[in-house]
Amino acid sequence: MIWKMKISFDGTNFFGWQIQPEFRTVQGEIEAAISSIFDRKVSVNGSSRTDTGVHALGMIAHADFPERYESEDLRYRLNAVLPLDIAIVEITPSPDDFHARFWAKGKRYEYRLVFEKIPHLRNYTHRIDRKPDIGALNALCRDIIGDHDFTAFARIKSVPDNPKCSIRRAEWFDNDYGMAFVIDGDRFLHTMVRSIVGAMLDCERGLFAPDQFAEMLETGIRKYNYAVAPGCGLWLVEVFYD
Amino acid sequence: MIWKMKISFDGTNFFGWQIQPEFRTVQGEIEAAISSIFDRKVSVNGSSRTDTGVHALGMIAHADFPERYESEDLRYRLNAVLPLDIAIVEITPSPDDFHARFWAKGKRYEYRLVFEKIPHLRNYTHRIDRKPDIGALNALCRDIIGDHDFTAFARIKSVPDNPKCSIRRAEWFDNDYGMAFVIDGDRFLHTMVRSIVGAMLDCERGLFAPDQFAEMLETGIRKYNYAVAPGCGLWLVEVFYD
Repeated sequence: MIWKMKISFDGTNFFGWQIQPEFRTVQGEIEAAISSIFDRKVSVNGSSRTDTGVHALGMIAHADFPERYESEDLRYRLNAVLPLDIAIVEITPSPDDFHARFWAKGKRYEYRLVFEKIPHLRNYTHRIDRKPDIGALNALCRDIIGDHDFTAFARIKSVPDNPKCSIRRAEWFDNDYGMAFVIDGDRFLHTMVRSIVGAMLDCERGLFAPDQFAEMLETGIRKYNYAVAPGCGLWLVEVFYD
Repeated sequence: MIWKMKISFDGTNFFGWQIQPEFRTVQGEIEAAISSIFDRKVSVNGSSRTDTGVHALGMIAHADFPERYESEDLRYRLNAVLPLDIAIVEITPSPDDFHARFWAKGKRYEYRLVFEKIPHLRNYTHRIDRKPDIGALNALCRDIIGDHDFTAFARIKSVPDNPKCSIRRAEWFDNDYGMAFVIDGDRFLHTMVRSIVGAMLDCERGLFAPDQFAEMLETGIRKYNYAVAPGCGLWLVEVFYD
């Protein structure tokens, strides 16, 4: 039986999603939890890899293991075994050919900023020392929406053969504690959201011009340097399927 | 010059407010920060002591040190020296006889509950496995409001000569992630809020009757046992002054 899981985790104390020997990872903890319940090695496949410190509200993963428990019972058992910084939000039986990554039609990320020292949000937001002009940031968002080559906003060593991504929504909004950026796309390159956020913030504070931001999207060349925003502000909110 | 500080802290990694040799405490960190800036030993006096794991949004404290910097500059300097889990929200010059504890007219605490495993709130809420009946909890609140001897809701070893507290507001409400209890009083005994919350939750789930809850408030005798709710759900929200 293929099980589909919706997972929430606090990325603070993980070396990201992907299993690595010697390091504490989300995938590693979930595989260990399922394997302990079913007393055999079970592999877990995620829709995405997240970096160190990145959080998730709705990571999707699948795994193949017996139908021994009902969904709610299984969810309860898994959450009891998993550490407190990982929660299975939902687990449901899926079609035999379901694949968390290949079936994904898109994802939503959020990037959260604060402008004050807020102790309880220190691991869940990125703090900058001034409130940026939300109008200027949203003007840059208009360049991002649509189909673009995002090579200039990805880790250079890991740009795939096809660097085109289709962005359906990109928007900044005020919230109770600061501001957040929400972005929906069919796919994302490595560190793409953090690169876009870092570049927008550097552009907004005048390190390069909005035209130059747009130029990087047109040419795929990282001509203007920008600081990649840190992982702790990034949240994988949702993965979309048909 | 007497300075009045409004402090926010994440209590997770502190052994409470009060300075203790060998342990990391909020008071200890703030004294060290101020002392390092002014290059001499400075004592900090808080409005309240908080236990291990308890959080604050608006702890008030005072300290006596020179008027070398403007408030905003001083706040900036202190926040830069203090660790990320403590923030000075406000610092202002005060009357010479201001005393954070003696001048306090009352305090507001909040106790936060969740009913699901929520990784990002694990240190900031208390999780119980069912959603209690908010009507039943609010009915118990009506017994609390007014002047009562709270001996039955305090750590027995530390009940003061006068165990009477005047409660102006006590109320449960639903919020985005679960429920919270808010309580305003002129003063609070040791572990009083956590004892009240624990007793209310045990009463609501039928371990003793509402009449017996009321009886403990009338007699001051802890006749019905209850589990004191853990520190991580408790927040010192505000300290009131004239």
